[in-house]
Amino acid sequence: MSDFAATIQQHEFPNGLVLVAEPMPGVQSAAFTLLIPAGAAYEVVDDGCAGGGAATMVAEWITRGAGTRDSREVLTALDNLGVSHAENAQTLHTSLSAATLGRNLVPALEIFADMVLRPHCDDSEIEPIRALCLQNLRSLEDDPGTKVIYELRRRHFPEPWGRPSPGTVEGVSTLDARALRSFYGTAYRPGGTILGVAGAIDWPRLKDEVARLFEDWKPRPEPRLKESPRGPRRDHIVRETQQIQIALALPSATVNSPDHYRGRAVAAILGGFSSARLFTEVREKRGLCYSVYASYESQRDRAALLAFAGTSTDRAQQTLDVMLSEVRRLGRDGIEPEELETMRAGLKSSLIMAQESSMSRSSALASDWYFLGRVRPLDEISAELDALTPGAVSDYAARYGDPSDLTLLTLGPTPLQSAG
Amino acid sequence: MSDFAATIQQHEFPNGLVLVAEPMPGVQSAAFTLLIPAGAAYEVVDDGCAGGGAATMVAEWITRGAGTRDSREVLTALDNLGVSHAENAQTLHTSLSAATLGRNLVPALEIFADMVLRPHCDDSEIEPIRALCLQNLRSLEDDPGTKVIYELRRRHFPEPWGRPSPGTVEGVSTLDARALRSFYGTAYRPGGTILGVAGAIDWPRLKDEVARLFEDWKPRPEPRLKESPRGPRRDHIVRETQQIQIALALPSATVNSPDHYRGRAVAAILGGFSSARLFTEVREKRGLCYSVYASYESQRDRAALLAFAGTSTDRAQQTLDVMLSEVRRLGRDGIEPEELETMRAGLKSSLIMAQESSMSRSSALASDWYFLGRVRPLDEISAELDALTPGAVSDYAARYGDPSDLTLLTLGPTPLQSAG
Repeated sequence: MSDFAATIQQHEFPNGLVLVAEPMPGVQSAAFTLLIPAGAAYEVVDDGCAGGGAATMVAEWITRGAGTRDSREVLTALDNLGVSHAENAQTLHTSLSAATLGRNLVPALEIFADMVLRPHCDDSEIEPIRALCLQNLRSLEDDPGTKVIYELRRRHFPEPWGRPSPGTVEGVSTLDARALRSFYGTAYRPGGTILGVAGAIDWPRLKDEVARLFEDWKPRPEPRLKESPRGPRRDHIVRETQQIQIALALPSATVNSPDHYRGRAVAAILGGFSSARLFTEVREKRGLCYSVYASYESQRDRAALLAFAGTSTDRAQQTLDVMLSEVRRLGRDGIEPEELETMRAGLKSSLIMAQESSMSRSSALASDWYFLGRVRPLDEISAELDALTPGAVSDYAARYGDPSDLTLLTLGPTPLQSAG
Repeated sequence: MSDFAATIQQHEFPNGLVLVAEPMPGVQSAAFTLLIPAGAAYEVVDDGCAGGGAATMVAEWITRGAGTRDSREVLTALDNLGVSHAENAQTLHTSLSAATLGRNLVPALEIFADMVLRPHCDDSEIEPIRALCLQNLRSLEDDPGTKVIYELRRRHFPEPWGRPSPGTVEGVSTLDARALRSFYGTAYRPGGTILGVAGAIDWPRLKDEVARLFEDWKPRPEPRLKESPRGPRRDHIVRETQQIQIALALPSATVNSPDHYRGRAVAAILGGFSSARLFTEVREKRGLCYSVYASYESQRDRAALLAFAGTSTDRAQQTLDVMLSEVRRLGRDGIEPEELETMRAGLKSSLIMAQESSMSRSSALASDWYFLGRVRPLDEISAELDALTPGAVSDYAARYGDPSDLTLLTLGPTPLQSAG
């Protein structure tokens, strides 16, 4: 693999903001990902944010007028620069991301700096935003596959680390201007914020422009969060859906753990590529359901292997039984050398392909910095993958695949039986 | 814009297969899109395919053992080459697409050539595939936003050009081996098939390898389809969903029409960028719904502007009224010069960005060839966009925006009132 690491640039500004950038030769686009530590986990009950939704409402509020532009002018200015953009509150971060032509990068960053540092936050925008967020919560009820994963994370991770960013109907209905301003005032802060930029960029100029745009952002103390246990480990949500959704989670090694690639390998071998175990056993051999997968996700201090299937009521019990049996088999019998080879080929290939997109590259730079405080070069990842052995991955599966640590959630007309 | 056109290569083989390829300097990946004229429109009632679903079932069947490999070996071989791939039946085509590292492109193409020319099509695979396709149809019932668009196309386009590829429960339940083999035998043919390839490729070698891999594919006559009117123009599907889905379609200019970019402009100005009319009126000002958009889609002989919104029952009538009023306003008052500028900036930017992805480039090559019999260079698109005037686009909107040509479909607990 070629060495991209040499071109990665990084700088920490006096207020704590970190800029990580990678010029990509031969591309005309440039993209950025701004990760602000203003996710739903930072909604504080004492500030009137009990029912959730503040992070999502504020992520919308900051787009509705900022700096010298009113709400409509902000969106029009971005459209006129040909910027495709998204503003999303997640559990840990609020992520602002954008892609455009390299020559429009700095003008786009200027608009985002206004949103983050100088949002108008007019009271008159609150009711339309509230209506929008309530609509979003209702549309989740018509999207049971997404809903069950939100609710699985809520049960699996300790509070507040599994909190769904859309909030609840009660929360969104009651949030007022004071609570929203309080959230903005404490959670939007340069310390812990990471700006990843990739594509057609000129590093010295970018660094100067980011300094100019973000230097007025005043540091604020890091909020202290109280962690509390969650659960239940087994649960069912009654909904009159056509299909039953099955979602389960197991603990896994975090990105910054030496076991990280073992955890990724186990998730992939269970359900991350087209000949993986869940696809073969659930989908191909038995035709039990169309959509089934396993994936890996990590926060800084906890990570999970998630597995999901959506199937009809008459096949749901068998689908769940097969899924649980595959989880147990991984822990008991480990993995085959061929599966490890397949996993390695897939991950290397997808990593190299992701290097070619300025958008996914900017996101990877910000994410790497969040987890590791540095960017992991491809060569290093490649060496880590090559060093994996079937024995080590099997040992890992035996340690983490304990079904008593499993969180299992189903959603549909009737509950299922879960052994163990 | 730079001139990519000089590097585009094309070749038509004696059996009718067309190869269109573009080497992309500086990338390590390569991707292909194989468009076979074997979409759901080619399911023939006389062959036992009355209820639909044959194209989808056959697209799955060909992956389950091909050439010297059994079902599992096909998927494992692709995974071992690090190939991310998808096999989808659509209305017009069955699309087989894949992305991997350039050095694995030809080995991946070999496996796909086996699938297309030498699928095993074992009878024993039919029941698991049927179960899978029935599951897919049931999951559509839990995904009302996708379902309403399928059903809108079915009503808007004449039969068979709006036929949903997943078929119906009755159709999928009754298809037998004879009907499926008959579909494969008539619809999978080299004439009308287009292979688009982009990325790290060596053209002379690619051309030779594609010749070797596909030269045994025997030409077959083009099936003749009977077109018949569809409708109804106004319809409601009763479902106990949380939200009401609203979908509407208007005729538009096809990709090969001189009016093409006027049609694209009108769709974008209605709902294709973040400051577009529907976002402003429905989402931002009134908070009526979270998800609303307009888009353009084309077949060779017909095209449509689609608009969609999903909203709660108490806001659905107002949402529909605003959408219809925006459609009428476009036809009556035309567009503003600033809107045209915004649309131009967005489309140019997204076209240039799409050039940087081997996957989206391979798909664009195949699609351009399908519509035009050639690949349209970026410079030409850019010149066409620059030549658009507010007057010409407004005239176009007045011609195409006739509400009497509108197809309107809603899905939810109760119907809405539609004026006109």
